[in-house]
Amino acid sequence: MCQSVFRNKPDTQVTFSLINRSTHIPLANLIDEGELREQLDHIRSLSLRRGESTWMRGNTFYGKRQMFRPDFMDWFEKLRLPPYHLERVGDQYELTFEGSWPEVMLWEIPALAVLMELRGRAVLNTMGRFELQVLYARAMTKLWEKVEHLRQVPDLRIADFGTRRRHSFLWQDWCVQAMQEGLGNGFAGTSNCLIAKNRDMEAIGTNAHELPMVYAALAEDDAALASAPYDVLADWHEEHEGNLRIILPDTYGTNGFLRNAPDWLAGWTGIRIDSGDPAAGAETAIRWWQERGEDPRTKLVIFSDGLDEAKIVELHKQFLGRVRVSFGWGTLLTNDFRGLTEGDRLAPFSLVCKAISANGRPTVKLSDNPNKAMGPQDQIDRYKRVFDVGAQKRFEVLV
Amino acid sequence: MCQSVFRNKPDTQVTFSLINRSTHIPLANLIDEGELREQLDHIRSLSLRRGESTWMRGNTFYGKRQMFRPDFMDWFEKLRLPPYHLERVGDQYELTFEGSWPEVMLWEIPALAVLMELRGRAVLNTMGRFELQVLYARAMTKLWEKVEHLRQVPDLRIADFGTRRRHSFLWQDWCVQAMQEGLGNGFAGTSNCLIAKNRDMEAIGTNAHELPMVYAALAEDDAALASAPYDVLADWHEEHEGNLRIILPDTYGTNGFLRNAPDWLAGWTGIRIDSGDPAAGAETAIRWWQERGEDPRTKLVIFSDGLDEAKIVELHKQFLGRVRVSFGWGTLLTNDFRGLTEGDRLAPFSLVCKAISANGRPTVKLSDNPNKAMGPQDQIDRYKRVFDVGAQKRFEVLV
Repeated sequence: MCQSVFRNKPDTQVTFSLINRSTHIPLANLIDEGELREQLDHIRSLSLRRGESTWMRGNTFYGKRQMFRPDFMDWFEKLRLPPYHLERVGDQYELTFEGSWPEVMLWEIPALAVLMELRGRAVLNTMGRFELQVLYARAMTKLWEKVEHLRQVPDLRIADFGTRRRHSFLWQDWCVQAMQEGLGNGFAGTSNCLIAKNRDMEAIGTNAHELPMVYAALAEDDAALASAPYDVLADWHEEHEGNLRIILPDTYGTNGFLRNAPDWLAGWTGIRIDSGDPAAGAETAIRWWQERGEDPRTKLVIFSDGLDEAKIVELHKQFLGRVRVSFGWGTLLTNDFRGLTEGDRLAPFSLVCKAISANGRPTVKLSDNPNKAMGPQDQIDRYKRVFDVGAQKRFEVLV
Repeated sequence: MCQSVFRNKPDTQVTFSLINRSTHIPLANLIDEGELREQLDHIRSLSLRRGESTWMRGNTFYGKRQMFRPDFMDWFEKLRLPPYHLERVGDQYELTFEGSWPEVMLWEIPALAVLMELRGRAVLNTMGRFELQVLYARAMTKLWEKVEHLRQVPDLRIADFGTRRRHSFLWQDWCVQAMQEGLGNGFAGTSNCLIAKNRDMEAIGTNAHELPMVYAALAEDDAALASAPYDVLADWHEEHEGNLRIILPDTYGTNGFLRNAPDWLAGWTGIRIDSGDPAAGAETAIRWWQERGEDPRTKLVIFSDGLDEAKIVELHKQFLGRVRVSFGWGTLLTNDFRGLTEGDRLAPFSLVCKAISANGRPTVKLSDNPNKAMGPQDQIDRYKRVFDVGAQKRFEVLV
């Protein structure tokens, strides 16, 4: 994504902001501001190490060598992340990042991971040595039972998408290894490049909502807005092939997006279902492919919204044979500490870091779930009109 | 015990033998003979380290300094364990030790611990890396849940008696630390001197069946036999005071032992209940103390037979306030891997190492449970007659 932005919109000025959808978690009471600043300052001191750069230049991604162009790598090697703005407001933190899009976008993952891990450490600090050992013993047992359940299911393909909201780095590393040992070829890889590098796994991923959100915010009028979600994929189409050609259709409503999509998009490899009722989303995609003369059985459906192992097994059973099914398993893979502490103080929660404006204009996300929508109300109304989004069903957002 | 034997019966020639009461566990199929010999040879290469000797000489045991006399320590420092005799018979091992009593008796604990640990390793060798991690995660969780249950109970006192049938040394070390962290002052200490030394805990213990068994075997006639169980305690009485004056009454039947006991024994600190129905045994002791004009509320009852945490809580509740209650928790503290593997291949089992003869005469144990009795049948009959043991109820021996 960063390379695509670097090539196509390098000068776009964006603001990213932390958004804690779980307002009952008082982050500013839990995490010391000094400690948070120390971590964020440390992130700004980091740059690509030589071995990391070598790996990016030399590694095969999705079977393809040299996915990253020399000019991008030259820029990336010199990059340090831009400044942050941190302010305590009530019992929450306002944390924002401003600057050019390709630089600012790289803050999302470390900012979220640091906040999740500091919150975890604040809770762990109150526990005794054996309570800690037994906490991790229980968490390991819990994850391994999920893995043992999943390994019973033939032809399952699951990837780790859990970096940003992981419990901690070491814990994610353990979870990913457990998945590899337990699922073997059923484990498709991780979107965490460092773990992929260290553990000789596939580094994988898809494109995210920020691409259409920023492209849409840059649109000069309603006509440009209506075509923005396709423009961004046209840029993507030029650059990527195969399993990287995955549609993320829900930013402004899946139904309208597919209805108005150009035919070349139906030729893409698959679709990622990230909000709303996942089964309904997959059925919509199947119908759309059939209408466009494509064989759904050759198409990939990647489920990635709030998955846990029971839901994975259910969706897999439901769609096996009708499409190629895959799963991007996130927070409940790398941070399922639910029920393991008194008062459930380590349960994961819904923290995101999103582009909120581009070149001074607010961004908007509608999603297939109004609980995941964001942006100023007048812009939400405008986007709903432009993208012809009707009534939407609400779904609880756990993570 | 060793010091007492070293002083009183140093030249007694004894044979100790491994006895696997759990004949369904084919030890010789599970444990490689070469590996077992390697371990036993290694044990023979060990002698007391300087720091260990310093600790024994300088440490306080039961509040008393210099429990070990200089002549005993001089001998002990030079000691190497005598040879062993190992032979495979069917799917079991015959493992015996012959020599002078104070030397041979020290084989019991390492021989049993090595056999338990090699059996465990044989099973662990078949497991994958994550299966192993999760196995121990589950075992930790299991033990910690027991500790959390026990810590709810006020005035509980429990010691670790689980060295000989532990899952492994490292696991025992973890269990003991978990007990200390979870129970605080409710954890009375460990009978494992190395762990007590390393972890600054109390090293504690009681006397065992081998004392009356060997003394009885040495008796020249029935009259001497009848007084042997008291003779050994008279020797013990001279040497020990306070919490080391604990009667182990069940070797030839608790009822007869107490009925015929000299009055000075009623003045001892307490009694250890190690077979039969533990509540019935404690009631018998309480009645006996009352008959001898002693106040049971000042007396200590140590339960030590096949305990698990539910039984501990039950007995504690039943006798709290009537006597001082304490627990010697063994195998199900340090080796409760029941239910943690497929086919329960790590479940603990009943392995013992006992004196089977002394100066050429067979030893006999009757116990308050015929399933724990041992010795040649004619001698068992003779002992039953001499000690006036009537009908006995059988209790299943788990560990």
